[in-house]
Amino acid sequence: MTDPQPAPRSPGAADATPAVPGDPLRGRFAGGVHPALDVINRSLPDDRRLWDEDITGSMAHARMLGATGILPADAVERILEGLARVREEFAAGTFVEQPSDEDIHMAVERRLVELIGPDGKRLHAARSRNDQVATDLALHLGRASGALRARVVAVQRALLDLVRRDGDAVLPYYTHLQRAQPILLGHALLAYVELLGQDHRGLEVDLRECPLGAGAGTGTSFPIDREMTARELGFERPAPNSIAAVSSRRDATMFAAAIAACATTLSRLGGELVLWTSREFGFARLGDAVSTGSSIMPQKRNPDGAELLRAQAARVNAAVHRLLELPRGLALGYHKDLQEDKAALFEAEDTLARMCDVAEAMLRDVVFDRDRMRAAVDDPSGFLLATELADWLVRRGVPFREAHEAVGAIVSLAEGRGVGLSDLSLDELRAVHEAFDGGVAEVLTVEGALAARTAVGGTSPENVARELARWESRLASGT
Amino acid sequence: MTDPQPAPRSPGAADATPAVPGDPLRGRFAGGVHPALDVINRSLPDDRRLWDEDITGSMAHARMLGATGILPADAVERILEGLARVREEFAAGTFVEQPSDEDIHMAVERRLVELIGPDGKRLHAARSRNDQVATDLALHLGRASGALRARVVAVQRALLDLVRRDGDAVLPYYTHLQRAQPILLGHALLAYVELLGQDHRGLEVDLRECPLGAGAGTGTSFPIDREMTARELGFERPAPNSIAAVSSRRDATMFAAAIAACATTLSRLGGELVLWTSREFGFARLGDAVSTGSSIMPQKRNPDGAELLRAQAARVNAAVHRLLELPRGLALGYHKDLQEDKAALFEAEDTLARMCDVAEAMLRDVVFDRDRMRAAVDDPSGFLLATELADWLVRRGVPFREAHEAVGAIVSLAEGRGVGLSDLSLDELRAVHEAFDGGVAEVLTVEGALAARTAVGGTSPENVARELARWESRLASGT
Amino acid sequence: MTDPQPAPRSPGAADATPAVPGDPLRGRFAGGVHPALDVINRSLPDDRRLWDEDITGSMAHARMLGATGILPADAVERILEGLARVREEFAAGTFVEQPSDEDIHMAVERRLVELIGPDGKRLHAARSRNDQVATDLALHLGRASGALRARVVAVQRALLDLVRRDGDAVLPYYTHLQRAQPILLGHALLAYVELLGQDHRGLEVDLRECPLGAGAGTGTSFPIDREMTARELGFERPAPNSIAAVSSRRDATMFAAAIAACATTLSRLGGELVLWTSREFGFARLGDAVSTGSSIMPQKRNPDGAELLRAQAARVNAAVHRLLELPRGLALGYHKDLQEDKAALFEAEDTLARMCDVAEAMLRDVVFDRDRMRAAVDDPSGFLLATELADWLVRRGVPFREAHEAVGAIVSLAEGRGVGLSDLSLDELRAVHEAFDGGVAEVLTVEGALAARTAVGGTSPENVARELARWESRLASGT
Amino acid sequence: MTDPQPAPRSPGAADATPAVPGDPLRGRFAGGVHPALDVINRSLPDDRRLWDEDITGSMAHARMLGATGILPADAVERILEGLARVREEFAAGTFVEQPSDEDIHMAVERRLVELIGPDGKRLHAARSRNDQVATDLALHLGRASGALRARVVAVQRALLDLVRRDGDAVLPYYTHLQRAQPILLGHALLAYVELLGQDHRGLEVDLRECPLGAGAGTGTSFPIDREMTARELGFERPAPNSIAAVSSRRDATMFAAAIAACATTLSRLGGELVLWTSREFGFARLGDAVSTGSSIMPQKRNPDGAELLRAQAARVNAAVHRLLELPRGLALGYHKDLQEDKAALFEAEDTLARMCDVAEAMLRDVVFDRDRMRAAVDDPSGFLLATELADWLVRRGVPFREAHEAVGAIVSLAEGRGVGLSDLSLDELRAVHEAFDGGVAEVLTVEGALAARTAVGGTSPENVARELARWESRLASGT
Repeated sequence: MTDPQPAPRSPGAADATPAVPGDPLRGRFAGGVHPALDVINRSLPDDRRLWDEDITGSMAHARMLGATGILPADAVERILEGLARVREEFAAGTFVEQPSDEDIHMAVERRLVELIGPDGKRLHAARSRNDQVATDLALHLGRASGALRARVVAVQRALLDLVRRDGDAVLPYYTHLQRAQPILLGHALLAYVELLGQDHRGLEVDLRECPLGAGAGTGTSFPIDREMTARELGFERPAPNSIAAVSSRRDATMFAAAIAACATTLSRLGGELVLWTSREFGFARLGDAVSTGSSIMPQKRNPDGAELLRAQAARVNAAVHRLLELPRGLALGYHKDLQEDKAALFEAEDTLARMCDVAEAMLRDVVFDRDRMRAAVDDPSGFLLATELADWLVRRGVPFREAHEAVGAIVSLAEGRGVGLSDLSLDELRAVHEAFDGGVAEVLTVEGALAARTAVGGTSPENVARELARWESRLASGT
Repeated sequence: MTDPQPAPRSPGAADATPAVPGDPLRGRFAGGVHPALDVINRSLPDDRRLWDEDITGSMAHARMLGATGILPADAVERILEGLARVREEFAAGTFVEQPSDEDIHMAVERRLVELIGPDGKRLHAARSRNDQVATDLALHLGRASGALRARVVAVQRALLDLVRRDGDAVLPYYTHLQRAQPILLGHALLAYVELLGQDHRGLEVDLRECPLGAGAGTGTSFPIDREMTARELGFERPAPNSIAAVSSRRDATMFAAAIAACATTLSRLGGELVLWTSREFGFARLGDAVSTGSSIMPQKRNPDGAELLRAQAARVNAAVHRLLELPRGLALGYHKDLQEDKAALFEAEDTLARMCDVAEAMLRDVVFDRDRMRAAVDDPSGFLLATELADWLVRRGVPFREAHEAVGAIVSLAEGRGVGLSDLSLDELRAVHEAFDGGVAEVLTVEGALAARTAVGGTSPENVARELARWESRLASGT
Repeated sequence: MTDPQPAPRSPGAADATPAVPGDPLRGRFAGGVHPALDVINRSLPDDRRLWDEDITGSMAHARMLGATGILPADAVERILEGLARVREEFAAGTFVEQPSDEDIHMAVERRLVELIGPDGKRLHAARSRNDQVATDLALHLGRASGALRARVVAVQRALLDLVRRDGDAVLPYYTHLQRAQPILLGHALLAYVELLGQDHRGLEVDLRECPLGAGAGTGTSFPIDREMTARELGFERPAPNSIAAVSSRRDATMFAAAIAACATTLSRLGGELVLWTSREFGFARLGDAVSTGSSIMPQKRNPDGAELLRAQAARVNAAVHRLLELPRGLALGYHKDLQEDKAALFEAEDTLARMCDVAEAMLRDVVFDRDRMRAAVDDPSGFLLATELADWLVRRGVPFREAHEAVGAIVSLAEGRGVGLSDLSLDELRAVHEAFDGGVAEVLTVEGALAARTAVGGTSPENVARELARWESRLASGT
Repeated sequence: MTDPQPAPRSPGAADATPAVPGDPLRGRFAGGVHPALDVINRSLPDDRRLWDEDITGSMAHARMLGATGILPADAVERILEGLARVREEFAAGTFVEQPSDEDIHMAVERRLVELIGPDGKRLHAARSRNDQVATDLALHLGRASGALRARVVAVQRALLDLVRRDGDAVLPYYTHLQRAQPILLGHALLAYVELLGQDHRGLEVDLRECPLGAGAGTGTSFPIDREMTARELGFERPAPNSIAAVSSRRDATMFAAAIAACATTLSRLGGELVLWTSREFGFARLGDAVSTGSSIMPQKRNPDGAELLRAQAARVNAAVHRLLELPRGLALGYHKDLQEDKAALFEAEDTLARMCDVAEAMLRDVVFDRDRMRAAVDDPSGFLLATELADWLVRRGVPFREAHEAVGAIVSLAEGRGVGLSDLSLDELRAVHEAFDGGVAEVLTVEGALAARTAVGGTSPENVARELARWESRLASGT
């Protein structure tokens, strides 16, 4: 059915679903919730992935309720046992969701009560779903950070393996997609390693302030011990203002922005692979397992994975759009609008995970055409050594801007004659600038140009080797 | 598991899935596709909802292949019978997807071949997935347009019922969320009817140019009859340039923008309902079936549906973001990036459908507090009739700007004394502007202010009644 | 100073600017406006470009006030003369803005009063800035539509001139940036003409409903004639609901979306030019006047204009983002938030105007390398005629999917041997599929493949010629 | 004229501007640049604000060229003197831009050459605009960070002054804009202080890796000392990969995201002030200097500043949209697309600066209506103490979920009778749950509910006092 019909039609309130007996959120209402509201309101499809964090948070809460005497020790014991069984059900995939489970919090609590009876109804004392979900989300960010960073490292490792294998191949460096200067392939690949390293650092998440205990946003009248729960859950301290703690989605938003930055890097790798695997560049060929065919053109070897790296970064960016816009203009306090954060955040996370996986797979199954790369460098019409010529003049004392201008004229001359720079005679060079002498020939070699770039960050072979070693050691040390 | 791990890890190309025997897209490749690529590349989860359009388009294509003699009549007959059976399977929910079904097009063709044998392999002559998906998408837009417009009308009908019931209630009109002037509730509700009417028109989709026959983007060497397929599928004509036909997602993008405009209207209705159902405004109360409770505060009656109207418009806006950004900078021709259009478009459609449903449900189950509305109008501290006073002066020949200034001073005076405008004596008024006389009292009534607004579009009772009648007649006539 | 300091610091209310004597908006307030508020609130820098629309609207309003007897004829006369003088000042660039001019409306009124005295203070009767700015904006959309559409036509004309000059050159059509099938350059360029034609239609603006007379949002107590002003200003009718009329920015938003769609088309042209002017493609060379140099590399000929076409579409998309998000969740009625519409809209308009101009300039100064294009087609390793081979088999009765598979095997064979399709012997072909015979050679020519694509929309020379003629005639007729 | 016409029309290449004699970037081109390209390409209007960073970077570069012997000491001396004079001209506002000044880099170099002659042409040795602008931008981020953080602190200070003055006022805390529980005004205001503190930390910028010396992206053949320039400019180290150094805009993008997070906080403050200053809430009144009037309604006191806080955050979000999208899919290396970063970044910075200023101004001139706040808390129909009642039951041993349900029934009962919780008799309470006894009355006081929230982060008076003291001390210590 192409009809976008996620909800049953809703002719009137008479359609309200029958009240689920004992639905703890409908206590003061007559009857159940209208199906159209249920469809838009139920967040379980999104937040069920927080089940482990939710149970972890509930366990810490229960232990604290016991330690402070708010709940008797035996009730806490039963709650902890019950929560452990709920966790097992989720882990085993046997947890059965019920229509009344509005979200993961209610689902866990409902099942807990089923499993252990009335003591399960004691768990929600001294907390609210507002602080609960904020805590779940913070714990989740920590876990997602670890998972995504591991994937980023996997991409870096695949890149480093390529540097080791083909890092000494020579190809043009491009600006404005115009050939600019020669570089080593290792230098180009290490650039991605470097940017991914920055992305990796950006994906770090510190568990600073624990929202648990902020209640609905005012705190609670129970003598809770927030230091205890914060510590147990791995936070530095409890959040110092209950309203701020439940109102803000800042951390999730900035994490999504960091995901977007990493997706950007991968999208650029994708864009570059699309170019390199084109017939015109011909620098790389993807293996069969990471290539796709056409339904009509039998000859096609399409880089769909690389194109999707390029495209799917827009998914992540749109998720950032949503996270930034959702709370705009909302007074502090909890609003249902904030619930929309999770679908956006999880889309960002899942997309980056997929992107890392496909990037790694392609890098593990790519073959470079070193000859095509070298030919592009040697093509005299590219004038890749023009900068060397200008620099040579500078070393002879010519001001750079004057040297730049002179070499511009020389390029025009060579271009007009359809030859390369080294095809010009010394006389021709001297006709443009008298500082030229026979020594100039020595800089007009690709190897010379590469070898000269020894200052930090340059593309010289020794730099590339050193950077490769540095990164291998860094990844080995688990940084 | 909170780990965002949609794909199995991908240590190397060796992990490629085994080639599916007879997978028509892997003909020239050794082995199957890498699982990480498969996860990101497979579009069936998104595009399966196009099954009916895909089959409709294929039937038109098959008939044309027969009519032009490209395929023999009996093969076409068998293809059509087979496609009808595939359609039945989808309609009955019995269609079984296979791992090799990369998208809806390959799924349908694969099943067709299973059902009718080799003749099924004849269907893809003279077309490509590029023109096929563009055609499916165009057909889909037409259907989604109808479905969404019907939902918009349902919201309008719910609003009109409220106008009929409570349209004569009086409440303040607000600018800058400050009380401005009195209006009728019917006028306020008809404003939403009006805006939804504009949205309804914006959601119209014309099937202008049929992409089918554009092939991969160059046309085809077969003597196809594109006029025939275009006509059969309900388009005005075949698309006149094959490259443009397969490269553009303009129509889907503009449809999503129209969806966003409609979502904006509903988000504003949501925002207004959040205000009106607050204790401070107290203008409206949502019925139990469209209210939600709190996990901790037993007294809460939360307008979650209204908040989600406000929030979910951001989902739609982010979908527009994606559709606009995806093709940016892509050379013409098909790129895999374009495949990302569907997830974005469908998210926009589904979100608006949900929003319409919950808006309608809330409007069917809302009760207005006419007394609170009226009290807000009568509250002298609101000075809602200050404009009437200024207008009165103008009718006495005072330039408006001077009148405006005088009444500003009068408001300051009344505010300072803590009284309303009608509590000031004539002497006090005359002390500010001498044009005042005893006749001024007549304009300082709410009913007078309302009744005077008889020019087109104003909030007078007769205007509201006329607009209600106009809209009822318009919706009845199915416009 | 790099400090982002648009406003003076604001230590306290004491800093409020002195009240401007007679500032008509500050009547009830003591003192002037705080400088920080003034900086953020003053919209004149944005909306001053609406001066002509504002005066036009005011003239229509004044005439109506006279016709209905709300103002005496002589006052109207003086107001019209005064507004004509204000218009002259703006047109001549001699209008002097004052610090009290919060926006274009107050600026015009202030100057009018200066020029004609107290009668100028009569103009604002029976209207508000809310309906005034909505009217200005609607008029503006009509004008901007015309201006932008003319620019789009200029780009189309430049493209058609290229089709006429070089339309018969042959180059590869690409999907996934992989060579796919041969096309004519004219076909590729006409694809842009076609898409721009859709964009041109999308930029149409109808002046449907005139907001003037909606007042602050409730209408007015004066007996105005909205039909008269609507007619005079070129609208179909007055807006039928005053609240909707002042609350919505739908038309501006959808116009911006249409601008974004057009910017998308130009961004793709830009992206394609970046590829074509690369050394690797080598299909095109930009003239000196539309090329840029490097500060360091003397040989560079950079396509900055094409890159900016690609990039600046993101400016437009971000403007759409703003216009869509601004009103989200706002209750109906006027809010200051809506004022943000203009900066976003104007940015979209200006950006598209710049993009059209630079696109036209580049197209007027580009040279194609027909030999490089042809060589890319003839390169046997591209297998551009593989589809022809499959289609040939289909014409021999082979099911397409089987033919596709066979040709896939043939491509693999040729690829493995490093030869082209026409280098394979008939025996080799027959070893893959027995349907091959000597007749197959006839389809393995580029000219044959092109000539066969005669169905509507295909790239055959006759189609390209017909489409060129159609577009030339259409543009000549001013459609 | 409302025509969006930033550029002169461009009928053809013949219109190219005449070549500016000695324009260093046009050396190899015949003639000047086409005006349409010039308009879109010239970045000086955006990047001129980097003049100080550009000169600072150039000075460090020049000193390094001297120290390494690449330039003679006397030339360096003259260059430094010249740059100091250029800086003075910018600082004094006397710098005159020339048509040939494509960007700030060329403007400074051009003026330097004018001032000191040929030695000025030596400056650009061993660098490119690619590393130069990346360095300028990094330096700029550091400065903008400081400037914006100071503004954020100013807003925090204004908030703390209000806490000191009115922090003990009592008002309802809201969730879903429904009254939830009583809080202290100080707690509500400190929530903003807290969130701004997080934003302040988010705006920190570390100058980690200095791009200078990366050249066009490959390094340079000169024996430069990148450690020296990195150190002098305040970076930790030189960027270790030249391609990454010139290709990425990661830091600017994440800084813009941090700006957006801060703008979000202020937008929420704005949204809350709009509510609080409404007649319905009536919690706050803005002073005259930060209020605005209406052109038609003399009584209006509009909170335009607060509305613009809410709205302008969307400007910042759209800037993030642009920065994220610009580099998507671009292969590494410099592309002109990256130049678009600055307009977006500066818009984000300027907008936040304006927002901070107007927020501070409003907070310095707001008066709270403590009586209205208190009345909203005491309004029995709000049931703000319902949670206290449930908690009381829990302390009597009733499971929380059971207590929650019981109080829900009690609220329904009271609501039906139109009374408050404390108006119900003990018998009525006991009819719902038998655990109630006479002691329950003690928790049904606002002061009791507040005083009980003593756990960290709760709204008790002692917590508010402690947090006020903590923040005052923290801001005093300049953290």
